[in-house]
Formats: sequence, C-alpha cells, structure tokens
Amino acid sequence: MSDSKQDKGVSVVSETVCQEVMGRSDAFTAVENVFSAMAKDTAYNFPVIREAIGHADALYGFKSGFDRDGMVLGLKSGGYWPGNIEKGLTNHQSTVILFDPDTGKLKSLVGGNYLTAVRTAASSAVSIAHLARKDAKVLGMVGAGHQSTFQLRAAVEQRDFEKVVCWNFHPEHIPNLEAVAKELGLPFESVTREELCAQADVIITITSAFEALIEKDWVKPGTHIACMGTDTKGKQEVDAKLLTVAKVFTDELAQSITIGETQHAVAQGLIKESDITPIGEVINGTKPGRTSAEEITVFDGTGVGLQDLAVASVAADLAEAKGLATYFNL
Amino acid sequence: MSDSKQDKGVSVVSETVCQEVMGRSDAFTAVENVFSAMAKDTAYNFPVIREAIGHADALYGFKSGFDRDGMVLGLKSGGYWPGNIEKGLTNHQSTVILFDPDTGKLKSLVGGNYLTAVRTAASSAVSIAHLARKDAKVLGMVGAGHQSTFQLRAAVEQRDFEKVVCWNFHPEHIPNLEAVAKELGLPFESVTREELCAQADVIITITSAFEALIEKDWVKPGTHIACMGTDTKGKQEVDAKLLTVAKVFTDELAQSITIGETQHAVAQGLIKESDITPIGEVINGTKPGRTSAEEITVFDGTGVGLQDLAVASVAADLAEAKGLATYFNL
Repeated sequence: MSDSKQDKGVSVVSETVCQEVMGRSDAFTAVENVFSAMAKDTAYNFPVIREAIGHADALYGFKSGFDRDGMVLGLKSGGYWPGNIEKGLTNHQSTVILFDPDTGKLKSLVGGNYLTAVRTAASSAVSIAHLARKDAKVLGMVGAGHQSTFQLRAAVEQRDFEKVVCWNFHPEHIPNLEAVAKELGLPFESVTREELCAQADVIITITSAFEALIEKDWVKPGTHIACMGTDTKGKQEVDAKLLTVAKVFTDELAQSITIGETQHAVAQGLIKESDITPIGEVINGTKPGRTSAEEITVFDGTGVGLQDLAVASVAADLAEAKGLATYFNL
Repeated sequence: MSDSKQDKGVSVVSETVCQEVMGRSDAFTAVENVFSAMAKDTAYNFPVIREAIGHADALYGFKSGFDRDGMVLGLKSGGYWPGNIEKGLTNHQSTVILFDPDTGKLKSLVGGNYLTAVRTAASSAVSIAHLARKDAKVLGMVGAGHQSTFQLRAAVEQRDFEKVVCWNFHPEHIPNLEAVAKELGLPFESVTREELCAQADVIITITSAFEALIEKDWVKPGTHIACMGTDTKGKQEVDAKLLTVAKVFTDELAQSITIGETQHAVAQGLIKESDITPIGEVINGTKPGRTSAEEITVFDGTGVGLQDLAVASVAADLAEAKGLATYFNL
C-alpha cells in the first residue's frame, strides 16, 4: 500500500474533502496523541515564523514540527489577510504541507482552514476530557464567533452537559451559537460574564480579547477553564491572578509563557514556568491532572504546529483510503 | 489573464518542466533583481528554520521571504537525507511553495532541486558580472562535483574566458567538469591549488570543505573569488586572512557572518561586519564594487530563500504561459 501511494505522487486533500472525511473523534485522538508525544519528547515543534510582511496588512508565517511516533513531518503555512473578506475569501488562509520523514519528498497538500478550526476545538475537548470534573453539567462559552461553534460541538462530547451559558462582546452574534446548542438539544442562556462564572462548571474562552474577561473571584471551586483565544503577545482572556489559585496546564510551555494566556502571570512574577504542566504529562500519566473536586484547573491552548500536522495527516490518510484525494507529480 | 489563472487553481511545475523552461539568463536576471531588492529593503528573508530531526540523519528546514518589488511570497522547504542515494533519490530534496501576496492563497508548487542548482550558479555569475575584471581570461574551479558544472556554465557567459583550471579533493571527479569545459570549447587543465591561484583571474569555490583550501599569499592581484560552498557554521573555503586584503561582498550580511565564508574572519576579529558590502548595493550603484584592476574581490554566496523564490516564480510564470503547468484546487 505504501508502494502504491508512492507511485501516485503527491496527494491533494481539498478543504471540501477535509470537511467530508475529518470527524471530531479522529481529531480528538490525533491531538491527544500528539500532546502525548510532545511530553515524551518524541515530537517537537520547530521555531515559529510569523512576519508582518508590509503588504495588504498581512501577517504571514508557518508552524512546523516533527512527530516521530506518528511519523509526521511538515508545516502549516498561512496567515491573516484582513482584506480577504471583501474579496469573498476567508481572512485566515492555511495550507498544511506534509513530507515523507524517510526521504524528505513532498507527500501531501492539505487544505488547512477547516482543519485549524477542528484541531482548536479538539484541543479544548482534550483538556475537558482530562481535567474537568466528571459531573460537570453547565458549559460556559465566552465568545460566540465562528470558532466557538466548533469548540461547543467538541466539548459536549466529553461530559453530560445539561445547559450552555454564553457571553459575547457583540451580543448580535450569540444567536449563531444558540442555534448550535439547540441543534445539540441543550438549553441555552445568554448571561453576564459574572453570572456565567457562577453557573458554569466548564468554561471555554474563545475571543480575541486584550484584557481579562473573567475575574479571579468570579470563578467557583471545581471549575475547568480552557483559554483558547490568546495566541499573541498582549492578548489576554482571564485575570492573571486566577492562575495563582488554579492548577495550570498548557499544550506547549514555551508558547504559553510567551504568546499564551500565562504570559501575563509569568511576566508579573505571579507564577513560575515550573508551575505550568504540559497536558501531555497528564495524558501520559507522568504528572497528576485534577486531584480534587474543588480545584480550579486552567488549560492554556496556544495552538502548536504539531496539532495541525497531526489532523492533516489523518485527513490525508482517510482521503487517500476513501479515494477522495487527487494526485500530482513534481 | 490573472483571472483565468485564478480559476485554474494552484499550479504545479515539475522538476522536468523546470529544466525545460528555466534558462540561465532568466535565472541570472531573477537573482540580480532580488539582490537589488534586498539592498533596497523592498525584499527580505525571514529567519531560516534548520533542524536535525533525529530521524534518517536528516537535516530539514525552510528558507522563506517576501519580495515586494517582484510580488513573490513563499518558502523553499526541504533538506538533506543522506540515505536517499541508496533509494535512487537525490539526497537534497527541495520544493518551492509560492503564495499570492494579495490574499495569502497557495499559488504554485515548484520542484526545487534543479532550480537550487540554477540559482546557486546564477549567484556566482552575478558576482562575476559585477565584480570581476572585464579582461579576465582564466577561470579557476575549486570543486568538481555535480554543482560545479552549473557554476561553470553560468560563469563563462559573463567574461571571455579562454581557459579553465581545476582542482578537486577527489581527482576522479574532475573528468565530469572537464567534459563540460570541452563542450563549451574551453581548454581545461587539472592543477594544484597553488597553481590554480597563480593562473586564475576568477576563482569559484564550490566544495563542502571545513578548512581553507586557498591561502592568502597564493592569490594574485586583481582576482575575483566567488565562495559558494560555505553554508553552515564550521565550513570554510578560503584563508580568513585573505579577507583582510580583499574587498568583501555577500548576498546577505546576516547569513554571511554566521554561516557563510566570512564567519571565521569576523569571529577572529580580522574584519568587521561593516567591511562587508551586500552585492545588491553594487547592483543598485549605491556602493562601489571593484575600484581598481589590482584589487582582490571576494563574494560570499551563502544562498538565501529569496533567490529560490525568485527563480521559482519565473519558472512558474514561464510554465504557465507555455501551458506546461498542471493545476489542482485545494
């Protein structure tokens, strides 16, 4: 089978095919496995390239890495072109490019826009699976943009949630998320941020905020918070002091303290790098996760290149197996 | 035409098509233009990613950048897989990936193996065109590997050379280069390194040496030397002291002093960064090149991502115009 693939050339897996083949449980498993491999040091991310290119206000760059367990090597290239929306294109443009780790030959081109949404949702879902209380009933969504619908769908598969509460900076977007909750058969309530914290057992923040939206004293004991929005220096979603009373986890330590949610608490000396646990350690059983029902757990999902490569590799395998990939030769 | 291209999707330009469409003069112009743009700060290289991945002894990475003059954005990914030769593949594997700077959308995939050879040859040719004496008659080739044949073909188009002298660590490879010289109608002589320096007006070093192959006192006045082999910390082709008596030029200052030929002279305090002139400044007329017939000029060609992008963009345009590109949609 490996030989017949070789003969076909480089596979192409389009955005449409990604949506067709990539299930949430496949994404969950791929992301969980890669977090595990990162903690075992059998997978690592290369330095991130991120450049304001001085044209079209674009931010361009790539995230890359190698997972020796999964034998996945490559990069996600792309960026943010704020003028695209007027041209009928997505502002975020991503492509995943996979190489054969045995030979360095180009292996697959995979559309990265849908997969980025899916892997970001899988990341908070993995954190809920490993860190939230088993009896969590209310899910709080801070943010109701396009990405929040992916987070919601993946989150509700991890616990028997009975209700969704939501706050969004632009209230007019909330009905989009409410419609998804209804489709999933879940009661939905639009609330203040303080009320959200009072009700929710699990909170997902998925915003582009540059200041804390959640105060330390609002959060009740036993809450799990997945902070998914902070991916740049200066961004912030929760009170830095919250991290002093919580157990803090992340996908990648180096990104977390520089561009992730823990950057402020670490810079202010409120917590140390050694207070933060890579979630892969919890998955592997080498470090404890939640140790009591009263603990507050925070997961800082910064988004690493290996996640993109992991889901793209699965999408390519599925598309190839189902005959949905096309091929070219270089 | 731009619209019809858009409709066709992402173009693919294979290694075979690159060989068919990419001429030496096109490569020369593309490389000269991009050196010019770099000196004007309208083109810049992003940080280089280079990783020993810990599998198959491979070195893998990317060079990338943006040229606003040429509107070329992208990366060359690839690396060195030492076991490939046993599998019937090239040890160096390169692919150039171009994006539309206006939208961030993937634009072209271009085979990078042949183009890397062509752009490296164009680089020393550009240095000869701008820095060698007009009356140069003897070309000295230090190195007779596969890449040396590309350097030779490009070099002889810049001056009226009447003879080629050559030295190679493995003498058994010299006949390959000799055959190319014969094809070009040039007398060829295999000599010692010292003799090579005594005869040559222009010298190209294209080796993977880790110590000086050319002594300072061997080089006669008026010589131009293009050092093309040093691309890694530790490599070296010429005596560091030679750089103290020569006018020194490079493609990119930052690479030159860290992984290029000037790394040793700078580290030893023999020359300063400010003693080195980007060749783009000479092309643009903002800094002098050779100012006398007796001067020794040295060009340190380290190889930058923008060169790869420049030649790949030209190859893609030519292939698309000639109907030799194929297309896919993501």
